[in-house]
Amino acid sequence: MESRQLLIETMSELMWERGYADTSPRDVRERSGVGQGSMYHHFPTKRDLAVAALERNVADLLPAVSELDGPGDPMARIEAYLMRPRDALKGCKVGRMTQDPQVREDPVLLAPVARAFAQVHLGWVKVLRAAVAAGELRTDLDPERLAHTLMAVLQGGYVLAIAQQDPGPFDAARTGVLELLRAAAPATTDDRHKMGE
Amino acid sequence: MESRQLLIETMSELMWERGYADTSPRDVRERSGVGQGSMYHHFPTKRDLAVAALERNVADLLPAVSELDGPGDPMARIEAYLMRPRDALKGCKVGRMTQDPQVREDPVLLAPVARAFAQVHLGWVKVLRAAVAAGELRTDLDPERLAHTLMAVLQGGYVLAIAQQDPGPFDAARTGVLELLRAAAPATTDDRHKMGE
Repeated sequence: MESRQLLIETMSELMWERGYADTSPRDVRERSGVGQGSMYHHFPTKRDLAVAALERNVADLLPAVSELDGPGDPMARIEAYLMRPRDALKGCKVGRMTQDPQVREDPVLLAPVARAFAQVHLGWVKVLRAAVAAGELRTDLDPERLAHTLMAVLQGGYVLAIAQQDPGPFDAARTGVLELLRAAAPATTDDRHKMGE
Repeated sequence: MESRQLLIETMSELMWERGYADTSPRDVRERSGVGQGSMYHHFPTKRDLAVAALERNVADLLPAVSELDGPGDPMARIEAYLMRPRDALKGCKVGRMTQDPQVREDPVLLAPVARAFAQVHLGWVKVLRAAVAAGELRTDLDPERLAHTLMAVLQGGYVLAIAQQDPGPFDAARTGVLELLRAAAPATTDDRHKMGE
């Protein structure tokens, strides 16, 4: 692997394992085997390297998000994205950075995270609008707000799973919101028929 | 303030500002003004002090949770707890610890967080069961799962707000789930009347 890529990979791993504050340029050099001269050539500061590592984590996240905008029934896409296999005890490499004390106070380090979340939000809004248009969700629900709700369920589900060291709460949280979405479908012809009886 | 309390307060502040890894016993002594002898008398290790600080943060969180179990209409209690004023950009002092790399790998440090979340979950399950019993939520919704969903919305809402440095996504996420809960009410007499027309 090229030195630049190797440094980025290693920084991403170390930020994941130890957080930003606790990762030194020396740690990155020792694990990657890249020399000091090459490191400072590519990344003059630890912060520059951290930005590149965050951009890489964001790039890993986005292909899955594009599935929200794929073909097929909108509620089926919502279910597929919510329920796709995720390592609940590892959490989200992007979202977790908001809890790193030095990252959350640095607008430059937060910027890739903010951009990624804005893109995920856009994907959710589109599929939720499509679900409303398809008569799968009540028209009085607001897709913009609901998109934040669904993102929060996933991000918060990781927090619950890690606290209990059990993926159960993560799965319960996402299954619960899926059941709520289904319960928030407009009354079907079937229901109307039953109620009219 | 007594030295023991002062050490706990200071550790809580420093873990909040810098995380666990980046807080040294010396930092705690310098900020608290408590001497080394007294510190090691109360807390032989940094980890002992961190457990006490986490227990204190949990104790701060729990009074609000008891409101879920108060008098009055269950849905009104759900709304009041979801929408109570919270500092979205600061996040949850308890939940955030799950993202601290050294805390999340240490069962002793995670234990107070896990216990707190189990207690909050219990509070949510009770009020959600009461809402189902009062005819405010459909009987096919599962209070155990839904309790995890609502906790995840709050914990994840903080992540979204911090990423964007804007409390908006936190408020959108919790308002969105409240709207979903309302949309998941059983069909009312009114609806039935309209549909029967």
